[in-house]
Amino acid sequence: MIGEPMKDTKQRIVTEGLDLLVRSGFGGVTLGVLAQQTGLSKSGLFAHFGSKSEVQLRLLEEAAEVSRTTILEPAMNVASGLPRLRAVFEGWLGWTEKAGLRGGCPVAGGFFELDDADPQDPVRRRLVALEAEWRTFLLELTAAAVKTGDLSPDLDVDQFVWELCGIYLNHHVSYRFIRDPRATKRALTAFAGLVSRSSQPSQAKKKTAAKRSRR
Amino acid sequence: MIGEPMKDTKQRIVTEGLDLLVRSGFGGVTLGVLAQQTGLSKSGLFAHFGSKSEVQLRLLEEAAEVSRTTILEPAMNVASGLPRLRAVFEGWLGWTEKAGLRGGCPVAGGFFELDDADPQDPVRRRLVALEAEWRTFLLELTAAAVKTGDLSPDLDVDQFVWELCGIYLNHHVSYRFIRDPRATKRALTAFAGLVSRSSQPSQAKKKTAAKRSRR
Repeated sequence: MIGEPMKDTKQRIVTEGLDLLVRSGFGGVTLGVLAQQTGLSKSGLFAHFGSKSEVQLRLLEEAAEVSRTTILEPAMNVASGLPRLRAVFEGWLGWTEKAGLRGGCPVAGGFFELDDADPQDPVRRRLVALEAEWRTFLLELTAAAVKTGDLSPDLDVDQFVWELCGIYLNHHVSYRFIRDPRATKRALTAFAGLVSRSSQPSQAKKKTAAKRSRR
Repeated sequence: MIGEPMKDTKQRIVTEGLDLLVRSGFGGVTLGVLAQQTGLSKSGLFAHFGSKSEVQLRLLEEAAEVSRTTILEPAMNVASGLPRLRAVFEGWLGWTEKAGLRGGCPVAGGFFELDDADPQDPVRRRLVALEAEWRTFLLELTAAAVKTGDLSPDLDVDQFVWELCGIYLNHHVSYRFIRDPRATKRALTAFAGLVSRSSQPSQAKKKTAAKRSRR
């Protein structure tokens, strides 16, 4: 736009680009389509981003930032331990819709779109790193719930988070693709089941406890 | 190819098309790219398929057929009930690789690529129907495992299958995208956990049983 400050133009490209990304995936975010969408010339776009990868990397940061604000900010007011873990999980389900975006989670989409991309591809690499950061955050939340005694001290925290990610992914499919009205109920039931069996001492521990009580 | 029978050409288009689909998703399967890949002219391709949707629908049938052969044929020799359910689950994990395909599951990929497509889009509709067929098949296998007594009679079979789908999806992500060497071990552990808690009578039933034994 004529007279628009550089900074505002850049933010506008990012906002329009994120909208494109959540609706059409990484394949849909090309400089050509983005130029058309923002009403800029390709050279106008090049003044802000040198390549398609550069735009896509910036959009991933934007998505991460929006997801953090949407999911984490409300959860941080909730008590540490299981209540906060649950709040994060509930906020995570359908977070793009809560953030007012018109498509699905670009990270989850990228898992299936970029699985066969060159492992050195910078966008694929950044996505792997972002996912590792997110899983580390979930591990910390789960470990905190072990510490508060909400979850069992002998819990396999890595396995717990792995299974949590499966619930999230299938909620994404059920809610956004299949459009099953019970999707969120199913995800919450699965979460409750995962927590319930992670709250009880393992069979081995139960036996030890039983032995102790018989003494 | 000159002198190639029509039937062979069509099969060649389907084989090349499936290779394209598993590597690049539905967005990667265009008549232009497919013509290039098969060495046919666009009009040569049109002699076999009238539109991009028509090709994609045929590729989905091919993918379903290949998955059935890869996953189901070995499992059908396994005893009905939990052993067969487990055999199907294990065959399902990474089935495209087992089938010699060079990419991931096109159905799982489509869940994230076509989630925002027009609900009337024929490819999206066929994908929804294929997934419903697959989930029905899993429901039947699970119900059979309840009948043989391997799984609890008060099991919520729909919830069981829902959670199974989550394990499959996260295995796809862990194995193909993150390339975690523990992906299959994690999925099998999750399956064992799901089966284990589905084999025990529910808490309510336990209480009834305990009451009965106290009489």
